[in-house]
Amino acid sequence: METRHSTQVAIVGGGPSGLLLSQLLHVNGIDSVILERKDRAYVEGRIRAGVLEQGMVDLMRRAGVSDRLDREGLVHGGIEIAGNGKRQRIPMDELTGGKVVTVYGQTEVTKDLIAARLAAGGEIVFDADGVTPHAIDTDAPYLTYRKDGVDQRLDCRYIAGCDGFHGVCRASLPQGAINVYEKVYPFAWLGILARVAPVADELIYAHHDRGFALFSMRSNKISRNYVQVSPDEDIANWSDDRVWEELSLRLGPDGGDLVKEGPVFEKSITPMRSFVAEPMRHGALFLAGDAAHIVPPTGAKGLNLAASDIHYLSEGLIAYFNRDDAEPLARYSDAAVARVWKAERFSWWMTSLLHKFPGGDRAFEEQMQLAEIEYLLSSRAAQTVLAENYVGLPY
Amino acid sequence: METRHSTQVAIVGGGPSGLLLSQLLHVNGIDSVILERKDRAYVEGRIRAGVLEQGMVDLMRRAGVSDRLDREGLVHGGIEIAGNGKRQRIPMDELTGGKVVTVYGQTEVTKDLIAARLAAGGEIVFDADGVTPHAIDTDAPYLTYRKDGVDQRLDCRYIAGCDGFHGVCRASLPQGAINVYEKVYPFAWLGILARVAPVADELIYAHHDRGFALFSMRSNKISRNYVQVSPDEDIANWSDDRVWEELSLRLGPDGGDLVKEGPVFEKSITPMRSFVAEPMRHGALFLAGDAAHIVPPTGAKGLNLAASDIHYLSEGLIAYFNRDDAEPLARYSDAAVARVWKAERFSWWMTSLLHKFPGGDRAFEEQMQLAEIEYLLSSRAAQTVLAENYVGLPY
Repeated sequence: METRHSTQVAIVGGGPSGLLLSQLLHVNGIDSVILERKDRAYVEGRIRAGVLEQGMVDLMRRAGVSDRLDREGLVHGGIEIAGNGKRQRIPMDELTGGKVVTVYGQTEVTKDLIAARLAAGGEIVFDADGVTPHAIDTDAPYLTYRKDGVDQRLDCRYIAGCDGFHGVCRASLPQGAINVYEKVYPFAWLGILARVAPVADELIYAHHDRGFALFSMRSNKISRNYVQVSPDEDIANWSDDRVWEELSLRLGPDGGDLVKEGPVFEKSITPMRSFVAEPMRHGALFLAGDAAHIVPPTGAKGLNLAASDIHYLSEGLIAYFNRDDAEPLARYSDAAVARVWKAERFSWWMTSLLHKFPGGDRAFEEQMQLAEIEYLLSSRAAQTVLAENYVGLPY
Repeated sequence: METRHSTQVAIVGGGPSGLLLSQLLHVNGIDSVILERKDRAYVEGRIRAGVLEQGMVDLMRRAGVSDRLDREGLVHGGIEIAGNGKRQRIPMDELTGGKVVTVYGQTEVTKDLIAARLAAGGEIVFDADGVTPHAIDTDAPYLTYRKDGVDQRLDCRYIAGCDGFHGVCRASLPQGAINVYEKVYPFAWLGILARVAPVADELIYAHHDRGFALFSMRSNKISRNYVQVSPDEDIANWSDDRVWEELSLRLGPDGGDLVKEGPVFEKSITPMRSFVAEPMRHGALFLAGDAAHIVPPTGAKGLNLAASDIHYLSEGLIAYFNRDDAEPLARYSDAAVARVWKAERFSWWMTSLLHKFPGGDRAFEEQMQLAEIEYLLSSRAAQTVLAENYVGLPY
């Protein structure tokens, strides 16, 4: 026996991409259902990025979910680059005609979106088991899954695959339907959350011979700091003391004075990968966010790239359902992919610039990193390139 | 029996670096002698770069050797970048507040400088055999060599090593005196000189899946074009027809219309290498130009970097001999090396951006090249970064 229901857009994945899409469709009168493999507590607990481009903030406002973000988000007009014994601010706002980023945890974005969807009577099916897309080459695709032991079928006009890198949507595409590009980096980030005021008001990206470090924050009282480690590092080797010591060394000459320790309440290791699958559409199935692309976290583009996909996809779906105009949806993959490659380039560049690469004779390449940091800190044009990418290229 | 003579600055190498230094010292009343291993015809016949930064042109003017350069040099306010099926001009003059480059062959620079030195009674010893520096750790260094079968000794206060990558000066430094950084690229340039008008008024740098190509010129009637080849390529495999065909394919969609064939009168293969030796001073011996550093030819920085070394070195020697101020000379290596690394970075970047790299799975890296070309062609800030480096960072 199978329970059968239907919606206009079936969304696989209840992370920020799927939730934001669902909410944007809702405020435009379009019906959707979200199928999420995990439970609500798990989804709301996932610790992820927290630097939002203006475009993402604007989308949250358009979706009517920006009250807390506008109240609690920390607006940053610059970042600092540390390296070669120096530290210097890049005034992003000045260099981009006033553009900024907003520090607000992805976890908070997710909570706000779930609350807004449920308050508006939106349907999010948590604990949806074995979600599987069908008939995506037709105008009547559907998804099957099990919920509380009962087989379910969800009919729809379109499927949005917002189910992340390991999700079923990309995996269910026929062989040869998409091209895949991938680079795995020979390092990872060990990140901590700690109850202590951040080192500075803005983020500090530090290049150091011992490895990269990032000094970030969740709020004025919670630090979010990272140190580069080997991708196969055992987290057990990293006591809190060792993490603080490395942070202080990698910040540079005044690291010892600036880095204040505090209770660490989260510690994890994130591998680093660049990945793109394109096109981002096959028949009635659209991929968005991590389902189609991954960036290394340097430069904070992951969530923002998901938001730009959702911008293009929501515009396309709104035009299709509300104005009977299929053209924007037909352009979705090209528009999204073009911006994806630019953000992939920026993330790859910033990662390559600031990390210590292991391996043989890299003396020349290390000098290139130092020369590029020196050049960056001395050239307004080079700083503008960094700034316009960091705050986010236009949609 | 040994003939002994003396000068203030002994210059090893009669290429553009040594000649320009000698001439700049001369107009400031400082005596020098140039020792050159080859004969005059050989030196004047070497085909090399031909894109001069404003700083190099200014130095030629200061040296009083710019008459023909000012008359015959082609002033270029932009370059074109071809790639991904497009071609676009980068307006360097606009982006840098009016800075330009001047196309004028290194061969012509060398001829003009030799003529000027000899006209002023300057001493250039051609066919100097077995030049060897001695006592460079003292205030009374000297060089020995053989000329016309006679042993010679040249005493001096300082030695300028302007004798190129394979020269004796760097090779004669004690082990451990300098640090060496090197990268050899997995490709080379096959260059032709041809009696036919250039493809365009300005240079075109072309990225193509078949490999890089450059469309340059020596004059309005002489084309200087290059195609990327394998570093172990046999030039015999490259008939003129094949070169023209590749040039036309690599220029892009309208290459077939734009590339006109003409008689080829020079054809050669240049390997590509990045190389830096630092510091650029040891005791009384100063290294300048290719003796201390090599760049791949993309971006035309080799001769210009030699010129900036000579700028710093001549200023230092003039301060020392004419104002008894040793300070600028003491800063020579730091000042020169800082600018060298910036030009090395630019040359490495432009080379990496535009060439086809051989080898295994480079799909992601190739997408990064395309994304960077797209970004470059769409961002004024990115174009400004290219432009300010191409016209030459300030001394």
